[in-house]
Amino acid sequence: MVATDNLQMPHEEAPFDLSAYLQVRQAQVEAALDSAMPIIYPEKIYEAMRYSLLAGGKRLRPILCLATCEMAGGTIEMAMPTACALEMVHTMSLIHDDLPAMDNDDYRRGKLTNHKVYGEDIAILAGDGLLAYAFEFVVTTQNVAAQKLLQVIARLGRAVGAAGLVGGQVVDLESEGKPDVSLETLNFIHNHKTAALLEASVVCGGILAGTPEAELQRLSRYAQNIGLAFQIVDDILDITATQEELGKTAGKDLQAQKVTYPSLWGLEESQRQAQQLVQAAAAELDLFGKKARPLIAIANFITSRTH
Amino acid sequence: MVATDNLQMPHEEAPFDLSAYLQVRQAQVEAALDSAMPIIYPEKIYEAMRYSLLAGGKRLRPILCLATCEMAGGTIEMAMPTACALEMVHTMSLIHDDLPAMDNDDYRRGKLTNHKVYGEDIAILAGDGLLAYAFEFVVTTQNVAAQKLLQVIARLGRAVGAAGLVGGQVVDLESEGKPDVSLETLNFIHNHKTAALLEASVVCGGILAGTPEAELQRLSRYAQNIGLAFQIVDDILDITATQEELGKTAGKDLQAQKVTYPSLWGLEESQRQAQQLVQAAAAELDLFGKKARPLIAIANFITSRTH
Repeated sequence: MVATDNLQMPHEEAPFDLSAYLQVRQAQVEAALDSAMPIIYPEKIYEAMRYSLLAGGKRLRPILCLATCEMAGGTIEMAMPTACALEMVHTMSLIHDDLPAMDNDDYRRGKLTNHKVYGEDIAILAGDGLLAYAFEFVVTTQNVAAQKLLQVIARLGRAVGAAGLVGGQVVDLESEGKPDVSLETLNFIHNHKTAALLEASVVCGGILAGTPEAELQRLSRYAQNIGLAFQIVDDILDITATQEELGKTAGKDLQAQKVTYPSLWGLEESQRQAQQLVQAAAAELDLFGKKARPLIAIANFITSRTH
Repeated sequence: MVATDNLQMPHEEAPFDLSAYLQVRQAQVEAALDSAMPIIYPEKIYEAMRYSLLAGGKRLRPILCLATCEMAGGTIEMAMPTACALEMVHTMSLIHDDLPAMDNDDYRRGKLTNHKVYGEDIAILAGDGLLAYAFEFVVTTQNVAAQKLLQVIARLGRAVGAAGLVGGQVVDLESEGKPDVSLETLNFIHNHKTAALLEASVVCGGILAGTPEAELQRLSRYAQNIGLAFQIVDDILDITATQEELGKTAGKDLQAQKVTYPSLWGLEESQRQAQQLVQAAAAELDLFGKKARPLIAIANFITSRTH
């Protein structure tokens, strides 16, 4: 009988619904960010910080942190303050990168940039305020050993400072307008400007859950691979996507004569390299079995996204 | 016999030699800051951070932290990473305050400001790098319980963010060119722009030494009082000192039509208020007896300094 046959069939697992997963996590992160920063006197600075912090975006860094913590046996609750801190740090870097003295961008995520709304002085201070608050906010974590929180703080500091994001940005600025930037330099820029904070997101999620050192190294390699894939796809999208899809000025790299992965490898080879990195990333998570499905789905999403 | 009389006299204690004390502590702080930040690739950002971090200055914040930790029974070693972090945070705030979009200053401590040497983009990033590194550096502290280091990080974050320095700077910017700023607003500005970080310096020194909560509150009041006294004297010196003595542009407040304590109270009353605050500060340290001599001498030094 058909019904019985069906019952005796090995249970065919439903494919992982990444879209639903991201939607739930995004809503949790939005709510946590919203309540992390109430508006008090002097209102202007809190409004400026909230303007950029709550301007949408994929919330990739906090979600990576939450997903890794859960995969490694921790809870959403123990990772949420760090997840929020990661988004605060990321938002700081966007606000400062957009300043006239830096990339001079007028739009970000389809909205006016922070300094276009609040002025350059407030935008600089809003970035500083978000960066300082990120570290303070990690300390609010409940039910995690103090020693682990110190590790998170050290990783976060390293990922955003001269050994991470800031260092990558400096080399990026130095490379601007130079048509002969090497692949080594381009890798340095993106390993520091993009991958360092993604790595901190994943590794901190692991630390909070109590992951042993050898597994933290696997998490670190997963993150470095998706970080580089993320940047390659960003470069590809800057050429192929429209401004409307990106929510920011498209074709800026070409205009600025920036060396990018597509300019070094061509579009097709860049796409292939990104896919290879994502496969290597997924392989690092084999030991976590089915629990790794969200992180593997996120890795695959990176190469298939259109904005 | 004279010799015997001398021996039998109660030992007359030598007055505390603040100048010698500060010289020793300053040299220790300079050495610690110097070795905290070696120059690696990308050199430019480390050079820019070191340019401002090692540009001299009184090192008041680190010395307050070290002195408080020692007074409360701790050691110089356990307070040194936090002392350095406080100077990194302070230096960040100076670099960003001097930017053209903020106070637009060309000179600081008698040297060209960071952005005049390295450009605005690097100056913004150097500040970000110093701020991030400050938190990372606190974590390197040896022989202090992790829980105490987390308290230090939370205090430091609060002192520099929108609830402290950044918030004070915002109200200061909003008050510029307004001749009707109230005493309440002026107090808010300086309690946040100056006193918050001085308070963190003192209180963190106490936390590291394991000071109980009731005594931390005394330390906090000591610091708030000297913080306000410090600012009143700064305002007085802006009027009475020469540019050479200050190492920065003198008379800027008058030029900018800024409301200051002397503009509200006159010079004489301002001087009296500063002295009263210093006396109140010293009274908070009675329970520490002779051990409080460095902190009391520092408080007195604030009202007697000429630059």
